[in-house]
Amino acid sequence: MPIIHHHISALRTALQPYRDQKNIEQSNLQRIALVPTMGNLHEGHLELVRIAKQHADIVVVSIFVNPTQFGAGEDFDSYPRTLDEDVAKLATVDADFVFAPSIDEMYPVLPPPTSVRAGAITAQLCGQSRLGHFDGVGIVVSKLFNIVQPDIAVFGQKDYQQLAIIKQLVRDLSYPIDIIGAPIVRANDGLALSSRNQYLSASERQIAPVLHQELQHLAHQLTSSKLSQQEADSLLAQTQTRINEAGFTVDYLEIKTDELNDITESAAFNTENKNLIILVAAWLGRARLLDNQLVAVNRPL
Amino acid sequence: MPIIHHHISALRTALQPYRDQKNIEQSNLQRIALVPTMGNLHEGHLELVRIAKQHADIVVVSIFVNPTQFGAGEDFDSYPRTLDEDVAKLATVDADFVFAPSIDEMYPVLPPPTSVRAGAITAQLCGQSRLGHFDGVGIVVSKLFNIVQPDIAVFGQKDYQQLAIIKQLVRDLSYPIDIIGAPIVRANDGLALSSRNQYLSASERQIAPVLHQELQHLAHQLTSSKLSQQEADSLLAQTQTRINEAGFTVDYLEIKTDELNDITESAAFNTENKNLIILVAAWLGRARLLDNQLVAVNRPL
Repeated sequence: MPIIHHHISALRTALQPYRDQKNIEQSNLQRIALVPTMGNLHEGHLELVRIAKQHADIVVVSIFVNPTQFGAGEDFDSYPRTLDEDVAKLATVDADFVFAPSIDEMYPVLPPPTSVRAGAITAQLCGQSRLGHFDGVGIVVSKLFNIVQPDIAVFGQKDYQQLAIIKQLVRDLSYPIDIIGAPIVRANDGLALSSRNQYLSASERQIAPVLHQELQHLAHQLTSSKLSQQEADSLLAQTQTRINEAGFTVDYLEIKTDELNDITESAAFNTENKNLIILVAAWLGRARLLDNQLVAVNRPL
Repeated sequence: MPIIHHHISALRTALQPYRDQKNIEQSNLQRIALVPTMGNLHEGHLELVRIAKQHADIVVVSIFVNPTQFGAGEDFDSYPRTLDEDVAKLATVDADFVFAPSIDEMYPVLPPPTSVRAGAITAQLCGQSRLGHFDGVGIVVSKLFNIVQPDIAVFGQKDYQQLAIIKQLVRDLSYPIDIIGAPIVRANDGLALSSRNQYLSASERQIAPVLHQELQHLAHQLTSSKLSQQEADSLLAQTQTRINEAGFTVDYLEIKTDELNDITESAAFNTENKNLIILVAAWLGRARLLDNQLVAVNRPL
């Protein structure tokens, strides 16, 4: 079973011996990995831990429903908290430590006066409908990096914009941490796993895989023939219509470069080896679902 | 002589063995201290290194004229760069490492998209006349903390607002770093040492100690009798007039709590053991001089 710590100082003390061993056995480096989560763990999270274990010797999983990344009217209060079940699941993948702090432990002053903002990359996509969300991500991830001081950190690609923001934050703030993006884990019918899937009714759950199917279909269309920007825009609009007609309310559906830059005419769809990504956020009942699909343009997926 | 590194990766590699020794010799902890500077070192900086040496085994002095903390029209281009002399001076106080990166090394993208802002505390005092200054301080200090990963860092109390901001940043971002504020080092005539003092003409240099003398005089007035807020405001205005009449142009002259909160009527001057601080910024010729004076109200200084 992983060892649970609720206090920053206790976690730091517990990790110190592993930092020591890093140095004593130079031939067998002890690396520490961080897997930040909000708990209510599913197979996607467990896969993050397995990947972390491949790159490090000690894996710390943080479980913290971070209030600063929820906006007014969002699901902070109702977000599922299942610490005991989470710890039992983490035991099955050999996580070493769980860091489950209280809000007071993380934020002696709430909201914290200091902000960590990744700039323009946060203003688009989820940043447009969730004002302040990525500010909350910025500060909590900075704190977790400073608390755990890991060698690597693993984040899921389902939250693709979050992953891109964290990579930029690590570059701009010179954190000595390798960031690893883990592939999306899906249910058998293709739905990307998410704690928020449990907000879906039985009938909504039947509809939900449409999101992934439509992104796959669009990705195929984008790669199967040379397209003008206008033709691609038209396909994008048709896809959005079909997703809405299936019962969703699309928040955004966009095509970006894999670094989340806009696609301009000059960097058009037909550039060989240009990696693009289709990103979607859509409401289905009271669940806001995210998905994305990488597209290697002009080459078979 | 201290060992000079210009690259982040080389400095990290050089520091790693000392982190090892920290663990191997548990009875004799090896602590790493950071002293961030913009170079052009004077006795005030050397005192920071001496204090760092008292608290740590290894002292890293960074020398970097940080472009992001200079505003348009400020003295970034003319700020004195004297690396060889600086290194020679650091040898006399047994500094272990000098980190002197290029601008490209620190900012592969300039300006960096990511910002680290300490909030309301930055909006007052120097933050009002130097827009963006403390954003530049926030990002460069965050980077230096992540590059050096020190156990302690030493900053001068002459830049009192900067010190307060960094303490808040360390608290809000959970950096495992003890911040030490070092007392102001003064010339024999009382002028606080500063690299910018060399901008003063000979006659301006004669006038410059007035700043410290007036703060001392005001501090004495504040502590020698019970004062109403109005009486204190009147003394403050008289002090500002005298400083201006001596040849300065006062940017600001204010009394704050020692945590840089406003003094309200409810937290008046006569509270026993209430620590206040008088802060001033004033132009003399082309030099913008800072000084401050702590005041233990109702007790002799």
